[in-house]
Amino acid sequence: LTGDGNAPRPTAAVLVTGNEILLGLTQDRNSGFLARALDALGFDLDRVLTVGDAQEDIENGLRELLGHDLVITSGGLGPTHDDRTVGCVAAVAGVELESHEPTMRYLEERTARFARDRGLDPASFVRGNRKQALVPRGSTVIPPVGTAPGLAVDVQGTLAIVLPGPPRELSQMWDTATELPQFRQVLGRAESLERHVLRVYGTSESAIADAFEDAGGDGGGTVTTICAHRFEVEVLVRAPERRRDALDHLVEGMKERLGTAVYLEDERSIEELVLDLCRTRGLKVATAESCTAGLVSARLASIPGSSDVLLGGVVSYANEVKHGLLGVSTETLETYGAVSAECAAEMAAGVRRATGADLGVSVTGVAGPGGGTEDKPVGLVYVHVSAPGSEKGRRTVFPGDRNSVRDFAATTALHLLRRAVTDPA
Amino acid sequence: LTGDGNAPRPTAAVLVTGNEILLGLTQDRNSGFLARALDALGFDLDRVLTVGDAQEDIENGLRELLGHDLVITSGGLGPTHDDRTVGCVAAVAGVELESHEPTMRYLEERTARFARDRGLDPASFVRGNRKQALVPRGSTVIPPVGTAPGLAVDVQGTLAIVLPGPPRELSQMWDTATELPQFRQVLGRAESLERHVLRVYGTSESAIADAFEDAGGDGGGTVTTICAHRFEVEVLVRAPERRRDALDHLVEGMKERLGTAVYLEDERSIEELVLDLCRTRGLKVATAESCTAGLVSARLASIPGSSDVLLGGVVSYANEVKHGLLGVSTETLETYGAVSAECAAEMAAGVRRATGADLGVSVTGVAGPGGGTEDKPVGLVYVHVSAPGSEKGRRTVFPGDRNSVRDFAATTALHLLRRAVTDPA
Repeated sequence: LTGDGNAPRPTAAVLVTGNEILLGLTQDRNSGFLARALDALGFDLDRVLTVGDAQEDIENGLRELLGHDLVITSGGLGPTHDDRTVGCVAAVAGVELESHEPTMRYLEERTARFARDRGLDPASFVRGNRKQALVPRGSTVIPPVGTAPGLAVDVQGTLAIVLPGPPRELSQMWDTATELPQFRQVLGRAESLERHVLRVYGTSESAIADAFEDAGGDGGGTVTTICAHRFEVEVLVRAPERRRDALDHLVEGMKERLGTAVYLEDERSIEELVLDLCRTRGLKVATAESCTAGLVSARLASIPGSSDVLLGGVVSYANEVKHGLLGVSTETLETYGAVSAECAAEMAAGVRRATGADLGVSVTGVAGPGGGTEDKPVGLVYVHVSAPGSEKGRRTVFPGDRNSVRDFAATTALHLLRRAVTDPA
Repeated sequence: LTGDGNAPRPTAAVLVTGNEILLGLTQDRNSGFLARALDALGFDLDRVLTVGDAQEDIENGLRELLGHDLVITSGGLGPTHDDRTVGCVAAVAGVELESHEPTMRYLEERTARFARDRGLDPASFVRGNRKQALVPRGSTVIPPVGTAPGLAVDVQGTLAIVLPGPPRELSQMWDTATELPQFRQVLGRAESLERHVLRVYGTSESAIADAFEDAGGDGGGTVTTICAHRFEVEVLVRAPERRRDALDHLVEGMKERLGTAVYLEDERSIEELVLDLCRTRGLKVATAESCTAGLVSARLASIPGSSDVLLGGVVSYANEVKHGLLGVSTETLETYGAVSAECAAEMAAGVRRATGADLGVSVTGVAGPGGGTEDKPVGLVYVHVSAPGSEKGRRTVFPGDRNSVRDFAATTALHLLRRAVTDPA
């Protein structure tokens, strides 16, 4: 699958359709999935275009993207009146629609079973089934995961892969699409890039930019992306295989300058890293959360296999729960308040006691928008990790709205947990 | 701000920039925010275009969007080498860059303070400050929230609003931008649409499409969007004020056909609805979560003022925590297992007891990918709500991957909580 190192990489574009996205009612998650998948295969994704459900908008959007080697569309394959993608693809390709009989039979069986299970009227599915079984003449049908079939269609020399909007259906059908002969043919020219990631925490984006410039920048044929999110910065350096030396040189130069702020050099998330660190040491974790109210535990539990490490925790939103389930003393709550280093420390110790965990991590703060005072402004958060023979606490004032503060606080708690494991002194 | 009902609404387009988005490393949240804001003001958002950081891509993207009344750009205003938006806007507008002195002074003060607070070298900010203070000649500067100033620039007759990528900075600076005289001038033609939303739970998207068709569809001048996410379906019917009758007729027709599946007719989330229902009745809620591990409590706590209702809860990931903190009996765990209706009921009752809450809601299931058996497949989830004199349980097998199952389960728990309050019998 690697090219000869000189041919340009094939280019791709994504067309996302849906009024609900342009109205801000729902967020497109498919273009992110496709972006990662295309990069891994060796495509250059040039652009993502989002248009509404109007026939004219979809057809114009598709026509504009035809210069690329590959165009992937997402959405508009459902049974409702505003699902128009298939008709638009046929129109731009200049072919008729026809009913695809295997799909029709699949849909009839599936909707009959569904109607029976839920006690719905099977007749209510007839119109939708007929619509969803229509495909452009000459296209290759990708079997549905839900009810919508996908398509691989040659549109004026560009391969169009037409996929449904629900992310789960799209991602499964994408795997099938990449195995099609016409897809493999486009893929033949793809050269996947060498990549090295530096994950950085605890320094400014400006300092990282300086480290990049001082280490020589992208002069040697590398392409570097610096991306901050939730107080973490990800530096991704990529280069063709023949520029591997330049890539290594730049990475080493940045690492020298950034020191211990580089906490990871692979693409694991902080959640995965914390779980891996604890798992190899046989450590169990429990959480005690006030303003984050379960975000830390839910983020850890989002990773398969987290039950090896995560025992659970207590969401102690009300002071009665901090006292009753975590044993935070009434004196601490009265003297220092629920948002205090003292309370955070007692919460972390309390959840270790309550669950038998080796490590207890706690978060308490003022998420806002109400509840701030001069002494304890909105954004003030205390995080604490209690471990055998080691206590670590941190006070930070985070910027942003309620949910930014909560996200930042959860990220900080995960990093403090990481440090409690790797650097317990 | 309303038009005469005949003038076309002004159109808008959004240009999102960033290699990190096209590589799938980060998700664009700004276009969703801008979409909602533009719709509320009465703009038609025609398209969102995402391009990379290359100068050529940004300039081409901007040129392609110039036919709209308003173009908003997001990202590429930072201090690093791959932040190129300002230069591109100047190039397309055909004007020079110049240093904006008030911005330069603001940045110098801000970074000096930041460097002092964090113990960083102030010299590391000089290069970035100089870059960020450059603006196209003749543009209006929107004061920075972080370090990047925003811009309002006339680009060949189109008003371009240039905003930074961090969502918090973008949203605050957007509010300032909408007050600028040149923005008010474009806005003058905007006619905001009448809108009515039906939020539907517990029926199929096909049945909703049929209800829509049978109620007459969009023939009367309405524009209807049907959008499913996380087992909830949102039906948004919009029309110009002069078509209010057609809108009301369609809405009433759909409501008749959908019956009690319509659970809400405004834009509150299920979290807000549950909190409001409990608040007016003086009810306190606590959560007991296994596979969702805090998602239900974190979703409730995402709403400002949730502490009136949410006391907290227990994340009982391990069986020892189900037994120790929630009092689930060893017999239940051994006989029926942790994923069972019996365990869910004891978890819900247990968390009421442990916290003194009026309502206890529990979730236990097999999120996968491992741990499924023939009897208890991946996706099997039990949800239970325990309330004074009322117990409600539900068993469901959800499709999808680990985090889909967890999301679906949390949504189901919130809806069961809603029904426990509105329909306790």
